[in-house]
Amino acid sequence: MTTAHGQPFVVPKSMRAWVLDDPGQLRLTEKPVPAPGAAEVLVRIHAIAFCDGDIRIVTKGPPALIEGGLPFNKNFTPGHEYVGTVVKLGPDVDEFAVGDRVVVEVHYGCGRCERCRAGMYTSCLNYGMNYQGHNKGHRANGFTTDGGFAEYAVNNVNTLVHAPDNVGDEEATLIVTAGTAMYALDTLGGLIAGQSVAVTGPGAIGLLTVAVAKALGAKPVILTGTRDARLELGKKMGADHVVNINTENPVDAVKRLTHGKGVHYVVEASGNPNGLNDGMDMVMRGGKICLVGFANAPVQVDVAKLVRNHISVFGIRGEGRSATHRAAALVAEGRVNAKLIHTHTFGMDDVPTAFRYSRDRVEDAIKVVVKINDNK
Amino acid sequence: MTTAHGQPFVVPKSMRAWVLDDPGQLRLTEKPVPAPGAAEVLVRIHAIAFCDGDIRIVTKGPPALIEGGLPFNKNFTPGHEYVGTVVKLGPDVDEFAVGDRVVVEVHYGCGRCERCRAGMYTSCLNYGMNYQGHNKGHRANGFTTDGGFAEYAVNNVNTLVHAPDNVGDEEATLIVTAGTAMYALDTLGGLIAGQSVAVTGPGAIGLLTVAVAKALGAKPVILTGTRDARLELGKKMGADHVVNINTENPVDAVKRLTHGKGVHYVVEASGNPNGLNDGMDMVMRGGKICLVGFANAPVQVDVAKLVRNHISVFGIRGEGRSATHRAAALVAEGRVNAKLIHTHTFGMDDVPTAFRYSRDRVEDAIKVVVKINDNK
Amino acid sequence: MTTAHGQPFVVPKSMRAWVLDDPGQLRLTEKPVPAPGAAEVLVRIHAIAFCDGDIRIVTKGPPALIEGGLPFNKNFTPGHEYVGTVVKLGPDVDEFAVGDRVVVEVHYGCGRCERCRAGMYTSCLNYGMNYQGHNKGHRANGFTTDGGFAEYAVNNVNTLVHAPDNVGDEEATLIVTAGTAMYALDTLGGLIAGQSVAVTGPGAIGLLTVAVAKALGAKPVILTGTRDARLELGKKMGADHVVNINTENPVDAVKRLTHGKGVHYVVEASGNPNGLNDGMDMVMRGGKICLVGFANAPVQVDVAKLVRNHISVFGIRGEGRSATHRAAALVAEGRVNAKLIHTHTFGMDDVPTAFRYSRDRVEDAIKVVVKINDNK
Amino acid sequence: MTTAHGQPFVVPKSMRAWVLDDPGQLRLTEKPVPAPGAAEVLVRIHAIAFCDGDIRIVTKGPPALIEGGLPFNKNFTPGHEYVGTVVKLGPDVDEFAVGDRVVVEVHYGCGRCERCRAGMYTSCLNYGMNYQGHNKGHRANGFTTDGGFAEYAVNNVNTLVHAPDNVGDEEATLIVTAGTAMYALDTLGGLIAGQSVAVTGPGAIGLLTVAVAKALGAKPVILTGTRDARLELGKKMGADHVVNINTENPVDAVKRLTHGKGVHYVVEASGNPNGLNDGMDMVMRGGKICLVGFANAPVQVDVAKLVRNHISVFGIRGEGRSATHRAAALVAEGRVNAKLIHTHTFGMDDVPTAFRYSRDRVEDAIKVVVKINDNK
Repeated sequence: MTTAHGQPFVVPKSMRAWVLDDPGQLRLTEKPVPAPGAAEVLVRIHAIAFCDGDIRIVTKGPPALIEGGLPFNKNFTPGHEYVGTVVKLGPDVDEFAVGDRVVVEVHYGCGRCERCRAGMYTSCLNYGMNYQGHNKGHRANGFTTDGGFAEYAVNNVNTLVHAPDNVGDEEATLIVTAGTAMYALDTLGGLIAGQSVAVTGPGAIGLLTVAVAKALGAKPVILTGTRDARLELGKKMGADHVVNINTENPVDAVKRLTHGKGVHYVVEASGNPNGLNDGMDMVMRGGKICLVGFANAPVQVDVAKLVRNHISVFGIRGEGRSATHRAAALVAEGRVNAKLIHTHTFGMDDVPTAFRYSRDRVEDAIKVVVKINDNK
Repeated sequence: MTTAHGQPFVVPKSMRAWVLDDPGQLRLTEKPVPAPGAAEVLVRIHAIAFCDGDIRIVTKGPPALIEGGLPFNKNFTPGHEYVGTVVKLGPDVDEFAVGDRVVVEVHYGCGRCERCRAGMYTSCLNYGMNYQGHNKGHRANGFTTDGGFAEYAVNNVNTLVHAPDNVGDEEATLIVTAGTAMYALDTLGGLIAGQSVAVTGPGAIGLLTVAVAKALGAKPVILTGTRDARLELGKKMGADHVVNINTENPVDAVKRLTHGKGVHYVVEASGNPNGLNDGMDMVMRGGKICLVGFANAPVQVDVAKLVRNHISVFGIRGEGRSATHRAAALVAEGRVNAKLIHTHTFGMDDVPTAFRYSRDRVEDAIKVVVKINDNK
Repeated sequence: MTTAHGQPFVVPKSMRAWVLDDPGQLRLTEKPVPAPGAAEVLVRIHAIAFCDGDIRIVTKGPPALIEGGLPFNKNFTPGHEYVGTVVKLGPDVDEFAVGDRVVVEVHYGCGRCERCRAGMYTSCLNYGMNYQGHNKGHRANGFTTDGGFAEYAVNNVNTLVHAPDNVGDEEATLIVTAGTAMYALDTLGGLIAGQSVAVTGPGAIGLLTVAVAKALGAKPVILTGTRDARLELGKKMGADHVVNINTENPVDAVKRLTHGKGVHYVVEASGNPNGLNDGMDMVMRGGKICLVGFANAPVQVDVAKLVRNHISVFGIRGEGRSATHRAAALVAEGRVNAKLIHTHTFGMDDVPTAFRYSRDRVEDAIKVVVKINDNK
Repeated sequence: MTTAHGQPFVVPKSMRAWVLDDPGQLRLTEKPVPAPGAAEVLVRIHAIAFCDGDIRIVTKGPPALIEGGLPFNKNFTPGHEYVGTVVKLGPDVDEFAVGDRVVVEVHYGCGRCERCRAGMYTSCLNYGMNYQGHNKGHRANGFTTDGGFAEYAVNNVNTLVHAPDNVGDEEATLIVTAGTAMYALDTLGGLIAGQSVAVTGPGAIGLLTVAVAKALGAKPVILTGTRDARLELGKKMGADHVVNINTENPVDAVKRLTHGKGVHYVVEASGNPNGLNDGMDMVMRGGKICLVGFANAPVQVDVAKLVRNHISVFGIRGEGRSATHRAAALVAEGRVNAKLIHTHTFGMDDVPTAFRYSRDRVEDAIKVVVKINDNK
């Protein structure tokens, strides 16, 4: 790898990085550039997008704080949807070469717990056990280990996906989001060509679930939400039908659009507490529901309905089963047009503004991307 | 087949049968003996047990009434846990012979909907579509078609299991209940040797789930409930640990007994509305919960926990995947001792008393069996 | 449904039908139009294609003769890839209406054996048990029961798929072939976006497997064969790479095209005896092979290689798991262009000529279609 | 951990170890005691058994030599079926404590290839990539990294299983063999209670497959072989029927014992080249075959039969899916009596004799165990 002037690229000693102090307090600082260990590479970051998870973390603190009660890591860099170039290889790495452009997944499992051993690395039992004297090896970029709002980051080779040549940096940051959508559909069995799918919630994951479902042949794909602009976008991304739940009950609409049968599958991506209840009424007997949105409050649920109608419900976290690799293929082939949900771009100095756009949906922002280094 | 006097057995024209009038009104009457059609046999019933489903039906009316709103079938015979002898074959039947002793499963799918075609016959989309001008072929013995509180019943050959020679009639009536327990464990993946299982609710299904889980090598098997006598019985059936939730919080107990890890699997068999909530706290990350009990009221659920901890929840109905065949093998080999939960026996004339014992748990009744014909 | 003159359509008493006498002897005759039974409809056939299976049957006799040894049914009508219009409903049928245009699948399982009960209807244990005094209910159109080289045929509702409006009759006959391709990919796990697939053999099934794999996002899709024209067609249908095995060893080519790794999946569609051996060398460790071609001779196999490299091999027959429904969705959306493999069309009187074109690949025939009735 | 004299146990600097020079040349030598790294522990070995894999390695050299062509590691210690005590922990290990008695599995996947990431660690794509300048992290104890014919060995925590207290060292060495048997049955779907299983070949794996299948409720379990003594032992371990193939054709016998139906599952454990052919004729339509024996020569196979009868064949290597953990539970509960196949015990100095007994089946040896350290 060489610079624009043909000189060999030299990795600097330190880098600019955003860190989170107390919840809500983002600060730009200097940090040492980390060194890649065994099975790791150093990535020079080009661009990174904000995800709802980032908003939770910046607002409330990392999962280690809000879930497990571990002390808050004051020098933590958030961010997990990023693309960059490999600039240095750890020992014995030959899976990637310096100069490769890569997209980065979130989860590197500990490799030693029974979930990781079974391939369920996003359910790692040592999640977050990587500081305060623990070192079980688990990493979740931007959640429990340093993420991508910085000039460089180290990553394990198995969390990297080659970025397709024909996909720009902004769009490439969304491949990992498409990976979550793919994993949701995998979890529902994966055989969805010609099957009916309802997606509730036209956020980034919901919209990409529409796109991936359509790319895999689902029919009809029904999208529900509250904002017409988002629903229109959903149509562009492949929804056969959209339902504004302010004007029609979503369960009634799904029944109407499926001739009374209900759908085979529901992906709940709204985080609306009532999402599970609606899903139970949308699926036909023997149907399946995947929950990807985090319901923001408990809700009254008629649990017996799950039994009576033989319904399965799958909570998922992250993008397991190497779904990001498969999603990248659909983006590369133009089957999933992630560009449609990229709405804003900011520079590295403007992270707080970018954060505000993303959190408050300023100008109906969907995916807000921050460019870190020039892609050269 | 011959009678006790060596005469060929002659199927009579009519039979004694209990029927349900309005909810709560059981009446003993005469009915024509039904004739077996294609793929069917006529079974002379020896014995039948009461199940919680029967209690719901006798109390509130059959599912056609309480779920789908179809008019109530006034001449309906309930009952689905029975054993008998094949006395007549429908055309082209060679799977069974006259004289075979058989246990009967509940569900015969329509065979024409997409669920049945996929082998999910307990999720048949034509459930209950078998009267009032509909005839889609679906049968659920004692739920939507005539059941076993009668001298004879017709059954499709694929709902019959050979009763093991070494298992008496009373115990044999419980094989189909063990089939539900087996199906619950199948649904959780089936590979449970050496895995930890919590069973909530020591009713008949809960106790048999304990027994089947233990027979398949699960360890530890933890049973929770409120009555010490039932929990003691649970130990006899294979529970490694029992927890009286009146004296210890069940989630705390499960955590204590698993060194803080939680269990791999939960089977919720109590029907307690809080069963799902407790289950979510009992399983480890990536764990699975099977719901077999019908929660009798809606309940507040923190749905986000399913997402955060990557938990799957499976509502099931009945005993799919031919689980009853596999359960019968465990009973035949003495690995599952269903006799332990058989507590009372009555004669055919005493069905209302038997019903009362079962519903009110008189003398701590678990499984109440009614003998119909002498087993000769 | 009305005729072109606006008169109600009247089903005639008899119809023209091709029947097979001794192997090789096709004869056009008159037969009574069959009446639809329970769960059946009568289909007026528009068009039918020849498949390799038909060629085997016409040449050697139906499976009942060649496999099971049952006496040969002299009045048998072959043919199973057809499209038509529903003209009459059996009792209690509401899944389809008179006038619906439908594609027909081959297999209707007996519904009573354990395979059918488990949803494996193409592995029905009562395959062919439908004549000579047996009537277990199994049907395989054109294999064991009358097929589509006739003006009318009865079919069970669960073997029918709505023909997409935007797909002509000739192309629609190939949807069931695409269903076999889909089932092959289902059997390999179904999650093939971004995965590498080698398809050996550019016959109709091989070419459609290429198309379906590509539609589902597989990459790269590699097609091997001996004829350049077929391989070129493979490219049009979605192959990323084609290999003429007369000029390069197929295993070497697959290794070269996958940077030495081998592919994730192989679909063997050539019927070449060596297909399994090549497949074992093409897949990476832990890979899977689906066999859809009938190898025409035994072959020397190094079975230990399956163990050493942890390889799974799946022989499949037909189009299980309702794959035809899902394939129809891909054809309807234009993702699979089945038209490309339709090469010739003949009229009903020309079935022997059409057969010769198909068997001998006259003018490089791939799919030869016979038009039966006008589509009105 | 303390010595017999109450002194703290001190790990020595060097140890006695058997190493393999050229194929066939075992030599007792001194080696440094290895130090446990991250996620590893040091195990003081009590006892180790010979497996067929060891015999191949000692005779022909390690897989690195015979499969991949890598240079032969002259200082290599073979052996992989062992039990011992944890005497030292690597950094951050809390999964085990010093003093824990453990059984050791063979495979530690690299954790970075796509197979390992998917939980298929016995199909690691970096198998053997751990010397000659490669260090991808993969370990296969006694195959590619130092094994157990030594006083000490290091092992990753996820390859360790707690040895049940009620199981002696000799029997405990066989738990990993039982793990292979368990994995074979897992691979066949795992739901085998009440299903019919034929096991071909009464070697250690075959016999333990009989025992595990029976423990999980399979019925009937049919064992085929050539030696009556082994078949008698098979009966003791749970076979319902045994067949001496010198006196009856095994396919005929299986058909006879299953009333003409064939079995649901075959586990081929004989390594007889004809094993796959026999298996194809033993299973019913839609059946499954697991290959665990290494066929010692290529053989003529009628591949079309796999297609015609919809048969799946699974080659497996090792004991994936943490099957050893589940097998250990069955051994601990006395459901699998591994003691029955332990026939001989030797001391550490007698490894060559033990090897000869195992290889040549001296005195009908099945499992030959070598005691390494006293178990204190």
